[in-house]
This record gives sequence, structure tokens and C-alpha cells, in this order.
Amino acid sequence: MPLLVTGSIGIDTVKTPHGISERCLGGSSIYFSMAASLFSPVRFVGVVGEDCPFDLPDLFKGRDVDLRGLEIRSGSKTFVWHGTYHENMNDRTTDHVELNVLIEAPPKVPEVFQDSKFVFLANTAPALQMELLGQITSPTFVAADTMDLWITGNLPDLRELLKKVHCLIVNDEEAKLLSGRLNLIEAAEAILVMGPRIVIVKKGEAGSLMCLADGNKFVLPAYPAADVRDPTGAGDSFAGGLMGYLAQARTTDFATLKTAIAYGTVVASFTISDFSLAGLTAITRKDIDHRLDLLREFTCF
Amino acid sequence: MPLLVTGSIGIDTVKTPHGISERCLGGSSIYFSMAASLFSPVRFVGVVGEDCPFDLPDLFKGRDVDLRGLEIRSGSKTFVWHGTYHENMNDRTTDHVELNVLIEAPPKVPEVFQDSKFVFLANTAPALQMELLGQITSPTFVAADTMDLWITGNLPDLRELLKKVHCLIVNDEEAKLLSGRLNLIEAAEAILVMGPRIVIVKKGEAGSLMCLADGNKFVLPAYPAADVRDPTGAGDSFAGGLMGYLAQARTTDFATLKTAIAYGTVVASFTISDFSLAGLTAITRKDIDHRLDLLREFTCF
Repeated sequence: MPLLVTGSIGIDTVKTPHGISERCLGGSSIYFSMAASLFSPVRFVGVVGEDCPFDLPDLFKGRDVDLRGLEIRSGSKTFVWHGTYHENMNDRTTDHVELNVLIEAPPKVPEVFQDSKFVFLANTAPALQMELLGQITSPTFVAADTMDLWITGNLPDLRELLKKVHCLIVNDEEAKLLSGRLNLIEAAEAILVMGPRIVIVKKGEAGSLMCLADGNKFVLPAYPAADVRDPTGAGDSFAGGLMGYLAQARTTDFATLKTAIAYGTVVASFTISDFSLAGLTAITRKDIDHRLDLLREFTCF
Repeated sequence: MPLLVTGSIGIDTVKTPHGISERCLGGSSIYFSMAASLFSPVRFVGVVGEDCPFDLPDLFKGRDVDLRGLEIRSGSKTFVWHGTYHENMNDRTTDHVELNVLIEAPPKVPEVFQDSKFVFLANTAPALQMELLGQITSPTFVAADTMDLWITGNLPDLRELLKKVHCLIVNDEEAKLLSGRLNLIEAAEAILVMGPRIVIVKKGEAGSLMCLADGNKFVLPAYPAADVRDPTGAGDSFAGGLMGYLAQARTTDFATLKTAIAYGTVVASFTISDFSLAGLTAITRKDIDHRLDLLREFTCF
């Protein structure tokens, strides 16, 4: 079943202890789509400026990513992000940002995409996420990401959005900030009260946690990998693997959600093994399934 | 099968955001024994001063803990530790320490204990751990803990010890310090080269990691608990549950080691649910097994 994603497309410059990657393709919707398209067709909605140096149709060649929602906007400039990962590969500093086209009007959802049932609203201003969601006729499963900027600066909008989504996927710091709780189980449970029936907390190298409104819980470590070269896109490709698997399964019961988190974990482990998209473009579904079997062996007792 | 433990006995004063517990019983061998005795008979070796205010035979009533290795040393004073846990319940500050009897001669291993096959050497100076181990005739499985103090100050002794033990159980910071590696998989693999065939890294609320010399790996999250009141003793009771289960199983193959880590994780989750030993003394093996089933449901996909 096709899965619609809206999010950012960026020109990234990333430094890690393993090297530097200059002016490479990045952005939440890019990592998400590359991951999700390993599982199901993706409908892509995003906007770049006329300066965008990347050939997206070529990048997604061989993957089922429908780019009819990609807008190349005349007179605008593409989003730019520069970041540095520190020695522990978990903390990062944003060195430079140019939001550019991201703070202009959002892209339109093409009419042929408006019947999408599975939707992922990657991180952007919650009012824009609402506007994008409003263009989908009758979605059955909507997940969203957010960030500290909107939690502190646009909380009323975010609260409205949380009433409209089934699942929120955030990192540990965002969960603490949004809930005001330091214990992540308590934080997730406090966010459930705000609306979504599923809260998934990404904890970097500590793995992830899912709490459901029905009381079910799931915790999974990160894939035990020694070869971490660039963590950029780990969270977005985790969400992509997870949502891609759900769209493929066409269901969101507890057992399917657990397997979806495991798939997200495995996909993220490939993402961080190389710079930019190199770790994700090199793999097939077979590689993913093989590593899923290993993850089960490494984590189940 | 009986399991021998040597380690500290302390008079603890612990502050957490949930309260304060003054001059309560603590120490690595105490937490370890209370946990391990849920699985197998424990042979206890430790020393207190004549000022020790606790009735240990009464404390362990109903548990199979043989206290013939407990020495009450005239003219000496018991180990004292004061610590404060911070808001996140993961970081702590040591406010005050009186090593007292811990820096005198170690206790003797009674002759009736010298045929022990399963041995746990809780954290103390590695030369003392070697001296204690030297009194065991023919152990089949020896695990040890250590800490930053010995890694930085007594590395040659510790390196000797590592050649004699089958398993090292340390926390994440200790693993990084000992190995000089920041990635925990790399850190564990570097420690394997120093001697033990099993390295287990405790990561607090992020769970634990095991690496084996044969290449096998296992990762498990912490039990997803919202009710953390006092983390003191979590690591020692984790080791106690783990070693107690191995001694009960009389084997240390990969599948048994995985289940042992799960048992250690569950026991630690009870420890941290209340101050001092209250969370551990209140439970039975049935409570442990019930929570093990829940942990499997919460972590396996």
C-alpha cells in the first residue's frame, strides 16, 4: 500500500570523527523515502529551490518512489544544514543552517496522492504539518515527528496536531521536553494523554521504546554495530523502515508494530554505517531480512 | 550448585529525588547475595568492623546464604558510603567514603567453601581479588567486577586478574576507560583480547550488552519501569541474578547466558523500585519468573 511522506530535502555538510561529507544530499524525507521504499511504494511530497544540485529521479531509480509531489520552486533556495558529530557519535552540534524554502509556503499534495492511507509527517512547523494533513482525504494511519524548536515555540499548534495523529515518533530529549518528565516511560505515557495512541521514543545507540494507549510496551536495543561512520538520517530512516513495513503489512496491531520497530532499527543500522545515503542505497530487502534475523538472535532469549 | 561471592558490606546513606535512606545496609556482596539466593545457594565471604549495626543472619533468613565466610573484625570499622542520585536517576555523586576495613587484609575463604565451582569477585582491589581467587581449589566459572579507581591506578594487577577470569562484568564508563574505545562493541571486543571469554557491559537505563570471544553477541534493554526510586545496588543485583541463574543451570552456553542476562535485568528492576534492599527482600522466584515473561513479551518480536 502506498505511503505518503512530507518532509525536508537538504544540502548537508557533515563532519564526524571518520571524515567529512560536503554538500551531499540529505533531509528527513530523503532518508525516510530511501528506507521506506525497501518495503512499499512511496509518495513523495517536498520542495527544493532552483539551486538544488541533485537529480532526485536518478537517485531513486530502481525504488518505487513517486516524485510527482516534488516541487522545484523558482526564485527559492534549497535548505542547507551543516553539522558535526562528536567523538561519542551520539552528540552533535549544528554549525550552520539556512532554512530557505522550508519557511516559505509548504508544497501541495498532488490530487493523485490525496487518497493515501498511510502518512508520515516528518519534522516541520506543526501548522504546516496540519495543513499538509488537511489535504489527505481519509488517512487511516498518520505518524509525525517534531523537534525542540516547535515544542518550545509552537506548543499550541503542536498540541492540535497531536490530536490528529495516531503515532508520534520523537527522540528521548524531545520526549522529555514535551512531557516535562525525565523517566522515558512516564514521558511516553504523558504524551499518550495528549492524543496519539502510539508513542515511539528513539534513544540513539540505546535503541527505542514504544508505549501504546492500551498499556502495551516494547523496548528494543540498537543493532549492535561497531562500524558507525555517520549517524545523520538514523532517525528518519528508522521511521521510514517502520512506516514502510506497516504500509506493506496494511495493519498496525501490536505484533506488527513490534516487527516494524525491529525493521526500523535494522534499516537505521545500515544508514549509520556510511556517509550520507551510501549505507542505504547499497542494500536490498534481502540484506534487511538477513540482519533482522541476526537482531532477533542478538536480542531474544 | 553453590555460588561463592566476595565483596563489600557497607553502611550506606543514599539520597535520590524520591527521598533519603540513612545508614542502611548496602555493599556489593549484600545486593549480590540477596539477588543470587533467589536462584541458588550462596557462599558469602566478606568483612565488617565491630561497629556493624546490622544483623546479617536475620536479614538473610529464609534465603540459602551460608555466612560462614563473614568476618566481624575486632578493632576495625565498617565501610561507609554516602551518595546522591541526580534528577535523571542515572548520574550519581559520591558524597563521602570511609573505606575502613576494606583497605585492611581481605577476609579468608573458609575451607568448606574452597571447592566452589561458580565464583563472583565483586569490585575491590584486583590484587585482593587475585588473593581471594587463589584460595579456591578448582573453579569452573569465575566472573569479576572492577571500577575506574583500579583501571587508572592498578592496571598491571587488573591485567593479571583478567587472564584468570572467564567473565568481566563492568559498566559502560568502565568498559570505555579500560579499553580506550568509545563504541561499546569495540570496547567489549578489546577487553576480550585481555583474557576473559565473556564481557558484559551494564548501561544503566539503556540495558546491557554481552560479547563473547566466539563472536556471539547479545543486547537487552532495561526492564521498562516507570517506578525508579533508588538505583543503588542495581549493578550488583544484576550480577547476582545472572550468576545465580548460571549456578542453578550449571552451564554457561550462549542460550543460558542470554537467559541469565534477562534474569539479572529483571532482578535489578525490582532492586531499583525501592530504597536499599526493600525491593529485593519483598520478592520470590515466582515474581521474578512472572516479570521475565513480561520482559520477553516487551522485547521479543
